[in-house]
Amino acid sequence: IIKKEIQADFIYEDEYIAAFLDIHPINMGHTLVVPKKHFKDFVSMSDDIAQKIILTIKKITPKILKAVNANACNISTNNGRESGQVVEHVHFHIIPRFLNDNFIHWQGREVTAEELGEAAEKIRKEIQK
Amino acid sequence: IIKKEIQADFIYEDEYIAAFLDIHPINMGHTLVVPKKHFKDFVSMSDDIAQKIILTIKKITPKILKAVNANACNISTNNGRESGQVVEHVHFHIIPRFLNDNFIHWQGREVTAEELGEAAEKIRKEIQK
Repeated sequence: IIKKEIQADFIYEDEYIAAFLDIHPINMGHTLVVPKKHFKDFVSMSDDIAQKIILTIKKITPKILKAVNANACNISTNNGRESGQVVEHVHFHIIPRFLNDNFIHWQGREVTAEELGEAAEKIRKEIQK
Repeated sequence: IIKKEIQADFIYEDEYIAAFLDIHPINMGHTLVVPKKHFKDFVSMSDDIAQKIILTIKKITPKILKAVNANACNISTNNGRESGQVVEHVHFHIIPRFLNDNFIHWQGREVTAEELGEAAEKIRKEIQK
């Protein structure tokens, strides 16, 4: 798509980043934002490109929302197959949202303070390594 | 929470950013990452803090995944009430994911090339304003 070999509705492009509409949108205006350089997923991105893409997302999101008359959106990236990532080129979704649009909410779990505390301890140990 | 008036399981903290576990996790290790400075939502963030938070997320995500033995995650921020944002302080979710974990996938719609083209045109006009 970035090489323009596959047709897409581009809405933004600069030297490093491109944005185009998802062809299976959750809501109209559903946009994919990608770096032109190849990175498999979010955690593989260079710091420089991660910073550039987040600023681009911040800049274009209000414009997208205005264009489709939305007040809200989800901004999301799926990192790895088990998360729903299908295409192995990092991409961020900007998904305009409307009241009662039937986009399904996440269902959080009930867990104990002990379970949380144990998980936190494991993560802190990994971060401190 | 940031002021430590409410107890939380912090896993990371620096001068600008804090990260702690969601008390209603989708999966264990579900983390919220927030700037210490107040911004209502993602689009209201300063460029500087947006860049800092994305680098922090990139840095801590692999550690979180390792700690909970996950290979994948969703990274997401809900911007505005209709998107599911409840707390009016910008926060990013890092949600570890596992195969068949029953976390519901997004359901994209079938739309025509014309519908997509019209939406893209509206958005491009807003961006060019």
